[in-house]
Amino acid sequence: MPRVDLNADLGESFGVWRLGDDAAMLALVSSANVACGFHAGDPLTLRRTCELAAEHGVAVGAQVSYRDLAGFGRRFLDADPDELAADVLYQLGALRAMARAAGTDVTYVKPHGALYHAVAEHPAQAAALVEAVLAHDAGLAVLGAPGSRWLALAAEAGLRTCTEAFADRSYTPEGRLVPRGQPGALLEDAEQVAARVLRLVTEGVVEAVDGTEVAVRADSVCLHGDTPGAVAMGRAVRARLEIAGVSVVPFAPPPGRSAS
Amino acid sequence: MPRVDLNADLGESFGVWRLGDDAAMLALVSSANVACGFHAGDPLTLRRTCELAAEHGVAVGAQVSYRDLAGFGRRFLDADPDELAADVLYQLGALRAMARAAGTDVTYVKPHGALYHAVAEHPAQAAALVEAVLAHDAGLAVLGAPGSRWLALAAEAGLRTCTEAFADRSYTPEGRLVPRGQPGALLEDAEQVAARVLRLVTEGVVEAVDGTEVAVRADSVCLHGDTPGAVAMGRAVRARLEIAGVSVVPFAPPPGRSAS
Amino acid sequence: MPRVDLNADLGESFGVWRLGDDAAMLALVSSANVACGFHAGDPLTLRRTCELAAEHGVAVGAQVSYRDLAGFGRRFLDADPDELAADVLYQLGALRAMARAAGTDVTYVKPHGALYHAVAEHPAQAAALVEAVLAHDAGLAVLGAPGSRWLALAAEAGLRTCTEAFADRSYTPEGRLVPRGQPGALLEDAEQVAARVLRLVTEGVVEAVDGTEVAVRADSVCLHGDTPGAVAMGRAVRARLEIAGVSVVPFAPPPGRSAS
Amino acid sequence: MPRVDLNADLGESFGVWRLGDDAAMLALVSSANVACGFHAGDPLTLRRTCELAAEHGVAVGAQVSYRDLAGFGRRFLDADPDELAADVLYQLGALRAMARAAGTDVTYVKPHGALYHAVAEHPAQAAALVEAVLAHDAGLAVLGAPGSRWLALAAEAGLRTCTEAFADRSYTPEGRLVPRGQPGALLEDAEQVAARVLRLVTEGVVEAVDGTEVAVRADSVCLHGDTPGAVAMGRAVRARLEIAGVSVVPFAPPPGRSAS
Repeated sequence: MPRVDLNADLGESFGVWRLGDDAAMLALVSSANVACGFHAGDPLTLRRTCELAAEHGVAVGAQVSYRDLAGFGRRFLDADPDELAADVLYQLGALRAMARAAGTDVTYVKPHGALYHAVAEHPAQAAALVEAVLAHDAGLAVLGAPGSRWLALAAEAGLRTCTEAFADRSYTPEGRLVPRGQPGALLEDAEQVAARVLRLVTEGVVEAVDGTEVAVRADSVCLHGDTPGAVAMGRAVRARLEIAGVSVVPFAPPPGRSAS
Repeated sequence: MPRVDLNADLGESFGVWRLGDDAAMLALVSSANVACGFHAGDPLTLRRTCELAAEHGVAVGAQVSYRDLAGFGRRFLDADPDELAADVLYQLGALRAMARAAGTDVTYVKPHGALYHAVAEHPAQAAALVEAVLAHDAGLAVLGAPGSRWLALAAEAGLRTCTEAFADRSYTPEGRLVPRGQPGALLEDAEQVAARVLRLVTEGVVEAVDGTEVAVRADSVCLHGDTPGAVAMGRAVRARLEIAGVSVVPFAPPPGRSAS
Repeated sequence: MPRVDLNADLGESFGVWRLGDDAAMLALVSSANVACGFHAGDPLTLRRTCELAAEHGVAVGAQVSYRDLAGFGRRFLDADPDELAADVLYQLGALRAMARAAGTDVTYVKPHGALYHAVAEHPAQAAALVEAVLAHDAGLAVLGAPGSRWLALAAEAGLRTCTEAFADRSYTPEGRLVPRGQPGALLEDAEQVAARVLRLVTEGVVEAVDGTEVAVRADSVCLHGDTPGAVAMGRAVRARLEIAGVSVVPFAPPPGRSAS
Repeated sequence: MPRVDLNADLGESFGVWRLGDDAAMLALVSSANVACGFHAGDPLTLRRTCELAAEHGVAVGAQVSYRDLAGFGRRFLDADPDELAADVLYQLGALRAMARAAGTDVTYVKPHGALYHAVAEHPAQAAALVEAVLAHDAGLAVLGAPGSRWLALAAEAGLRTCTEAFADRSYTPEGRLVPRGQPGALLEDAEQVAARVLRLVTEGVVEAVDGTEVAVRADSVCLHGDTPGAVAMGRAVRARLEIAGVSVVPFAPPPGRSAS
């Protein structure tokens, strides 16, 4: 039976400020990229998000970030590798305590925002991220964009690497994301997105922005959790997959849950 | 053979700002109360402090605090119990990741500054602190002032509780600390302090501020690490204890080290 | 012609996180209590809020707070008076730069959250707040709850003091607010609230929680800006006042606008 | 009579953490680049530093920075121009309130650390910095490295621009700084540095790292305030200048003090 993982960024509230509908999204995804307090996520939010994830059997991933609450981790920060590795290690430990107190565990790592983009290219920051994961737990999986430098380093180091596609982004004929800001970069029609995800999962193909077909392989599909129509789009995707008999299962299952 | 633990607050630098001489103090103490990032301690400092502690066979304790870098955790913060418990859990996990990456582990918890004083009395905050330790690891020891409400709660909950005396503070005839700011509250003569610590350890007695003798029992003696003469005083205490044949050993030994 | 000021807390977003509908509220109020960055309000939010306030001819007040983003300034912080005064002075200057760059100015000060409550009673913190306002600009008005210690100190020091009532809170027969959490403390019916505000403005009377009438005098009426029905309630109040011929004017008008 | 300005970075403590000897340096310099809270400088430190500067007749400049306490503003942050301009405006206002409460005023602006380097090249950040200064007060002077893009933009916008040389840095034959980390980049001999500063001031010449002479013009000479020998070096420079009859005067004098 075909299967796929659905992931989304969660736990991104901070104090009085709410972001996204974590409870609704946790009923749709199989993997939650939970913030770790550096770009978002006060400790109480993290604890509750982990508790909800545990209730739903959703895998918890550490969504590590630069230390930048004011910029939500979306701004490149030229941190030294030693600093960055320690920052990541700190976040991994903090979230892990939350997950374990909730009866589940962190099973994978996905960098957030500007760090996600930086480690796709920046050798020293990519190496720092991999070093931190290894120093913490070589049994963690890592999730990133296909072709990222840090994923290659992680694979060399023996980590399990997984790749993701994006449900609501369009692709070039070369299989890359159309940059945000360009026409057609973002897809907003929930049913269209759901159909694309289904095809990607079952055929390994998406229709590129020019109408050609392009092969895209992914262990997981990222749903955005904080946009206005996020929950509706997530429901459409999930429903389409279930109707087609595709299992939605974590690529890095939490303790007590098998992967199939 | 008589023995005692010596503890000090360490890892309290932040970024460019240095505080205390961690390397020197780690050669003197058996237990390091390492900051966890909320009152002090950037992640790289925490990592390096844990590495040094591991090299010296010094036990690592989590010195958890209110979230207050600007006030160094010295100001009471009226946090809700749920928030406080989550803040503590976050810090425990973060420091634990640092300790384990350094080849050692966190073996105890000691609250810092205003939180230390608050949980001696404040029922809701005391309960929150205990809840967080239990949620994280019921095998951790806890270190605090004799008579603290939170230590009583911790003992009821089955945690191992340990008490500390203060090397450079004077005591009332009732066995309480003379409040800071009162005459004679702080002792500055290193040899006098060393002699008092030795007597406390071997006889269970200190001379109170009025010249009477008072019984003080403690599992550990706290050395201050960030005052100008801290290292010299620590050396005097350590030397006096060793000459007298007192072993300086962690009350909650790190992995791979026995307690005697 | 009768007149009153309407105030609301604005500028309380932070980075990616939005709170309240500042644009809608600025069409309803005459005075904006703009956050200053310590409990909420990133600098770009503050700048834009001041620009909107200037466009609407709305007075800008400095909503100064404890330094506590994680707690939104709602938690008492036992800051030393010197620290608190400096924190307030820093915030006053920061917001003033925003207001002036927007072509308006800060004309009054209102403490936020836990600081609002603390300075009603706490002598040292009340004095620190007044000292900071005086050190910055003795021409600023101050806005607070009737009977607050800090308002009395401010009046003694020669500052112009103004008091506020709360549109959506019920009162005891003694003219005090029914504490949050008690039954009937919060009023949710927009038309009822609007009728109460009109009566308060025109007769100086509100119906207390026990049905008796109580005299309440206020220079301003506070509308809450961040609750779900905030904008609708504000519109109901504003409409009721305008229909009754009550002018809504700032108690501390911005430059270029007279008070009548 | 020849004259020069001496500037140093001050007010860079934060809470319990001390950095540099502000009191000693304020007796030596004519201009204090005072931190504004984003890379260093809690409000109470800023207030006290401004008070000391006022006592010494030392000019106060706003040392604006990226928001990065953990990195001391030394890490490039890819902030949007709108965010950066608002951040700078916020800092300018905050420090100005401190300076005015101390009976002096901010008379110039000097960016700190990574921002100093970024605005030498980065067009959007350079423009944002200039926009913020203009929005705040077009009467402020700006201080930076010769050839910086932002200084050129500032001059075009009508701001008074001033340049600085570095007392303890060596120069290439082209008149540029030898990059830190290269051999001979930093000069440590106080008397040698003092002699170089005197020659720079009186002849407009320094000896480059290869022994040739290079023309260097500067309105101000920067002394480092936070290195171990900072105060001794500052004293040597000041003494050498005074013996030679060079006046040490602010390039942007504080209120009540003339420039000669």
